[in-house]
Amino acid sequence: MRCANGIEARQVNELFINIDPIQAGGRLTSDAMKAVIAYGDGYSVCDNCRKPNRLDYISNPPIAEFHKDLAAWLNMDSVRTVPGARRGFQAVAHTYVRKGDPVLLTSLSHYTEFLAIEEEGGIPREIAAGADHMVTADAAAMKIEEVKREFGRLPVLALIDHVDYQYGNMHDVKAIARVARQYDIPILYNGAYTVGILPVDGKDLGVDFVIGSGHKSMAAPAPSGVLAATNERAAEVFRTTSIIGDVTQRKFGIKEPEMMGCTLMGATLVGLMASFPHVKERVKQFDKELANNRIVTDALLSLEGTRILSEYPRRHTLTRVDTIASFDRMAESHKKRGYYLSSALEERGIKGLIPGATKIWKFNTYGMTGKQARYLADAFVAVARENGLPIKE
Amino acid sequence: MRCANGIEARQVNELFINIDPIQAGGRLTSDAMKAVIAYGDGYSVCDNCRKPNRLDYISNPPIAEFHKDLAAWLNMDSVRTVPGARRGFQAVAHTYVRKGDPVLLTSLSHYTEFLAIEEEGGIPREIAAGADHMVTADAAAMKIEEVKREFGRLPVLALIDHVDYQYGNMHDVKAIARVARQYDIPILYNGAYTVGILPVDGKDLGVDFVIGSGHKSMAAPAPSGVLAATNERAAEVFRTTSIIGDVTQRKFGIKEPEMMGCTLMGATLVGLMASFPHVKERVKQFDKELANNRIVTDALLSLEGTRILSEYPRRHTLTRVDTIASFDRMAESHKKRGYYLSSALEERGIKGLIPGATKIWKFNTYGMTGKQARYLADAFVAVARENGLPIKE
Repeated sequence: MRCANGIEARQVNELFINIDPIQAGGRLTSDAMKAVIAYGDGYSVCDNCRKPNRLDYISNPPIAEFHKDLAAWLNMDSVRTVPGARRGFQAVAHTYVRKGDPVLLTSLSHYTEFLAIEEEGGIPREIAAGADHMVTADAAAMKIEEVKREFGRLPVLALIDHVDYQYGNMHDVKAIARVARQYDIPILYNGAYTVGILPVDGKDLGVDFVIGSGHKSMAAPAPSGVLAATNERAAEVFRTTSIIGDVTQRKFGIKEPEMMGCTLMGATLVGLMASFPHVKERVKQFDKELANNRIVTDALLSLEGTRILSEYPRRHTLTRVDTIASFDRMAESHKKRGYYLSSALEERGIKGLIPGATKIWKFNTYGMTGKQARYLADAFVAVARENGLPIKE
Repeated sequence: MRCANGIEARQVNELFINIDPIQAGGRLTSDAMKAVIAYGDGYSVCDNCRKPNRLDYISNPPIAEFHKDLAAWLNMDSVRTVPGARRGFQAVAHTYVRKGDPVLLTSLSHYTEFLAIEEEGGIPREIAAGADHMVTADAAAMKIEEVKREFGRLPVLALIDHVDYQYGNMHDVKAIARVARQYDIPILYNGAYTVGILPVDGKDLGVDFVIGSGHKSMAAPAPSGVLAATNERAAEVFRTTSIIGDVTQRKFGIKEPEMMGCTLMGATLVGLMASFPHVKERVKQFDKELANNRIVTDALLSLEGTRILSEYPRRHTLTRVDTIASFDRMAESHKKRGYYLSSALEERGIKGLIPGATKIWKFNTYGMTGKQARYLADAFVAVARENGLPIKE
């Protein structure tokens, strides 16, 4: 079925259990879908834009109110929407990083954080995760001292992922932030896998910025995200324009250069807004999500040779698993080679495993019902059994 | 009717003739609406992302093919999608502008071009439009010489709007580009009001970059846009990442820092793609659009005292009009004050005039049927007649 010329109508989330590691938190709520339909047209939220002519001042649809609620919910002072979390990294890096400046991130940081540093000519310095793939405050303190020795000055910014994209491990941002604050290093909390998934309290964490991803974790269309700041940092990153036209003497009001003026004008913003009440509720139910994840990891661990590479017990639903000594053993002799696993899952209505992956791969159980989690767990065991893999009793 | 908690279901384009100056070209086609529904979920276009893991390499949905077709259609060498035209300005400015560098734009340039310059610490220098609100190649040459005298060097970049947002006037970018090329100044063509509206041929214009807006003129959801470049400039703006993690020695493949990696992942991109075949067709029908615009401007000019401030005859459907000596004369004595005009239009099913505007205002007839244009024309005359304004025979 096609939805437009040459474009297949996507039904992955309608017809399948989707275990894709990055897609689970970005499925639209039905309210968001309705809102996207109502506000699909380009500048749809701008009908009632009045002075001072900035997106976050519009009251119908209730964009201004949404900004206030969102800041309060994150326990931060101000918030702006951005076209993806990465555009938040970019704005913050652009404000604080100059050519040659050392910038702190971690050995598990997302590539978009590196790109934000690269754009400014900054020098990335990774806090090394331990053998357990956890980033600690001690490691952060050591790295800061190391940077101080190497550069003769401190990192100008630290970008720390609360839950990293590689292992889904939950790092102690609060303790790391305490260290960063001792050195007066502004700290950016990357909540791409947490904001919209579990409760996030910026003031309690003691961070300067909280960034979230709408299309990854807030049930919104892409590209969307949020950038929250403390009052002190808001004055820096959300500073208003001061440029003046030399001929016309034009000024541009309260537009913010780091935001490039107004940001999310239509479907993306309204999708984010429509999902927000649901997102506020769902973060309170994260225990249930972990229970579902446990059902699936238990099943995987029952397959002899399988290892969960993420921290265990899990504190997030994004999970990295090593099946080299289980599923991968059959890949060489199977007529479908490594494709047998994704193919067997798909036959059972499960999508999201990279086709051909049998060694080290990731999945995400976020948003499943208990029944779906059990179905998925049983499917892994059944595929193993079918292929003669030993199963622990 | 509400589409979600506190959000009114918008029906402006379903129930009204919408004359809003910036919204006309961004209404979704029905194919785009279907595509947005199918791809509303966050990372919906990433199901089949395979190595080298970059958005514009994905073949299902046919994103790679779309990029090729789009570049060919604009007669440019490469193209990327961006979250709005402004993010294209930002990427280009970031590549060429350093602190203190003079940058050329015009006295009619959009504020987002100024912000892109401000972000880099560039110094804006406006080519003055003439008394007729037209920017000429002679004025560009004069300004370049002026900058040379003032700074002892040339502008590092020129951003020129083909059709400006203030008057909807069509400036001779081709002649201006010829001048810029003589001085070796890279020239960015801002096609926010042209790409998707009328035919644009980058090589014929002789420009280095063509930027278009998805949500303004390509019937796509916001934020979306396109940034096209010549091969020479593509190597500069679309250069790939070279940053390396100091601990992990990680590199990030062919991701592009100015794009912040992948750009439009879901509904925005697929909306752009689904509308593209229709957009390619509609640019060929621009004569019809001008004929409709003529019906409306003729009616407005029949109201004594009304002036069209845009170039006349019109070459674009975005039009600026002065009704100080016509509609505004009744505003003071009318019980609704200046709101009588927008209110009388709304009663007739016409929206998009800023409530209260009776002096100088803008409208856009783009996308109307001939019948709608005649209806709108008659409505202006009827409202004038109702309020006792003299009408020329």
